[in-house]
Amino acid sequence: MIDLVKNLAAVNRRTKTSVIRELLKLTNKPEIISFAGGLPAPESFPAELFADIASDILKKNSMTVLQYGPTDGLPELKDQIIRLLREDEGLIIKPENILITTASQQALDLVGKTFIDAMDPILVELPSYIGGLQAFNAYGAKMIGVKDDDHGILVDDLEQKLARLRDEEEHYKFVYIVPDFQNPSGVTLSEERRRKVVKLAEMYNVLVIEDSPYRAVRFEGKAPHIMYKLGRSGNIISLFTFSKTLAPGLRLGFVVAHEAIIRRMSILKQSMDLCTSSLNQMIAAEFLSRGHYKGHVASLCKTYKVKKDAMLEALGRYMPEGVTWTKPEGGLFLWVRLPEGMNADELFYEAVKENVAYVIGSAFHCDGGGHNTMRLNFSYPSPEQIDEGIQRLAKVIKANLVKKGEKPKAAALTR
Amino acid sequence: MIDLVKNLAAVNRRTKTSVIRELLKLTNKPEIISFAGGLPAPESFPAELFADIASDILKKNSMTVLQYGPTDGLPELKDQIIRLLREDEGLIIKPENILITTASQQALDLVGKTFIDAMDPILVELPSYIGGLQAFNAYGAKMIGVKDDDHGILVDDLEQKLARLRDEEEHYKFVYIVPDFQNPSGVTLSEERRRKVVKLAEMYNVLVIEDSPYRAVRFEGKAPHIMYKLGRSGNIISLFTFSKTLAPGLRLGFVVAHEAIIRRMSILKQSMDLCTSSLNQMIAAEFLSRGHYKGHVASLCKTYKVKKDAMLEALGRYMPEGVTWTKPEGGLFLWVRLPEGMNADELFYEAVKENVAYVIGSAFHCDGGGHNTMRLNFSYPSPEQIDEGIQRLAKVIKANLVKKGEKPKAAALTR
Repeated sequence: MIDLVKNLAAVNRRTKTSVIRELLKLTNKPEIISFAGGLPAPESFPAELFADIASDILKKNSMTVLQYGPTDGLPELKDQIIRLLREDEGLIIKPENILITTASQQALDLVGKTFIDAMDPILVELPSYIGGLQAFNAYGAKMIGVKDDDHGILVDDLEQKLARLRDEEEHYKFVYIVPDFQNPSGVTLSEERRRKVVKLAEMYNVLVIEDSPYRAVRFEGKAPHIMYKLGRSGNIISLFTFSKTLAPGLRLGFVVAHEAIIRRMSILKQSMDLCTSSLNQMIAAEFLSRGHYKGHVASLCKTYKVKKDAMLEALGRYMPEGVTWTKPEGGLFLWVRLPEGMNADELFYEAVKENVAYVIGSAFHCDGGGHNTMRLNFSYPSPEQIDEGIQRLAKVIKANLVKKGEKPKAAALTR
Repeated sequence: MIDLVKNLAAVNRRTKTSVIRELLKLTNKPEIISFAGGLPAPESFPAELFADIASDILKKNSMTVLQYGPTDGLPELKDQIIRLLREDEGLIIKPENILITTASQQALDLVGKTFIDAMDPILVELPSYIGGLQAFNAYGAKMIGVKDDDHGILVDDLEQKLARLRDEEEHYKFVYIVPDFQNPSGVTLSEERRRKVVKLAEMYNVLVIEDSPYRAVRFEGKAPHIMYKLGRSGNIISLFTFSKTLAPGLRLGFVVAHEAIIRRMSILKQSMDLCTSSLNQMIAAEFLSRGHYKGHVASLCKTYKVKKDAMLEALGRYMPEGVTWTKPEGGLFLWVRLPEGMNADELFYEAVKENVAYVIGSAFHCDGGGHNTMRLNFSYPSPEQIDEGIQRLAKVIKANLVKKGEKPKAAALTR
């Protein structure tokens, strides 16, 4: 066997298997109710429509759908994306502003590959999407965490970090933000802060990576503008996906950016997978052009809202005092904060014993913090499972409160 | 607009648009007969079977085929690959030895990402597959060319380069070889040389990347063993694809390697695209499990052999003396060598004027050589187009021989 230690690239050699990966292995028992996944509800997949479309396009258009396509994406899908962004976001863009990707994760990898040299500082939220952190980590980025609250990234903290880096004559590459129903926190960046972030980015001449996979999955409330629309200097790169609106199995996403950036990314994408599956691109393009998209997303939002409400209700009913959580208006996740000093990493093993699972919040923190937090997914389990699972989780948390020597509150025990 | 020069990663900033890309733009006129592509024959795609399969699995199994799948690939497809390799290659492997990729290009990117630090030397063939060179280039590899002849890589030259690097205490990462019907040359590495290369790799403790996308597309002759089977030390990584046997539009390939290597690659793949499309994996798995694969590949080989023979015949009929070419037993390409001193890069523009196109051979040479060579694709054009196209190409070459002041040979002119 080859000497791996000697042969691995340096960054890769230093990459450890993710903690989450190891923890998730413990959650594979059928009796576990898992809030740990990030899976869309499979019962919502438009399988019948896809079956008809796939059969049609394979019979009528196989020369295109089974062949290599252009690296930047099929024109048919780009046209639909342009229409969608015009109708939903009031955004006017050209095909040259779009790069179709093998879903959002490839877009994140592309962002890393395009901009990051080892040790380059980048600014990320506390907490931030773990897949983004992994993608940037693989290029040796130096993560600098910026604090979040229930309205998204703290603009003052962001400005402070930007100013410090400038004073150090350091060359920061970008600010990475998940502005809508953030993974993991479920929080949405407010309109006011979006404008401030965009202004700061222009002032400091730094890129903003707007990663918004859940944008279209809004159940309630009013959407702030996408950041791309607020910027005027071509320094915002926005990432979207069809994984949460159509299906992850298609592996389809897209980047919206200045055409000079798309051109650069497109050259790199060629070395990464030549092009994204033409078949899958045409399935999505047909689904959109036949007019199925809006109705489908509306029905999806209805399903998810029921589940989200079920989770909020269960949290209210079962959780002891001192535990708080976010109230997302969309997306797949919410975020639970345990009392300071309680450790969700340690609690995980006890939760699994009680047949309930979550993702430890510390995994989303580049600064080693967040040990009293956890991410709960509400899109995959049924409302009944949600109720039962939260009940189990509350039991574990209460037992832990007691163990820590705190007198259990009567209210919490009788609930 | 952000300052791209300042913000781009160093390797990326130094990446120029490929010459081929620019040249191919000139070949988009409908009147051009192009031998420049690398496209499989679209009339050979099993579109009807795919339509039935896609419709079936989307109706019966949508929860799997539209959902995220395991990063290393769906067990259903791995099982089929294991069976295929056992039957076709006599190779016995386990699921842990396989990583499903978003086609071969992603596998090449993964190899780069797993092993290459900037300035690491790697050994590549002269000529070598340009997509491999691009993928490795993106990680800043230092390419060292090893000479090829009509039986593949020259073992003596390989040993000399390996010894030199060892003497320089340099840390070479791998030898990259396309052993079957090489892209671009169409040449197959002989059995004898395969054994020697494997032995050398073990002696020098270096990895071999065996990239074999065309392996199954053999029209005639006897296949040497895959190199993976000849190695005993877990230092061979083999890359295969369904792009040439089923369809490129599926974007499906797979890596076969020691399980410790697959594990490392799998962690990286997670940061690159989470997983390959479950839908596409299941289409391929079903196609194989329903027993369509062997008959389909056999009929494909029949089609390609007719085209290859048509090209060899046309070359024999129209080309002037002094021009030679390889005689591939499979694959999609053959390789033409012009008389020394003639420049295929310059000739390209004249060829396009005569409405015929090829890929300049120099693009496949990491050492700046190969200017008198060209790659011709025979899988895409029809036999009639091949005959007409080679006639046009021969005309350009002959005119160039005359221009260079050489007395045109009577034989060549009357042919």
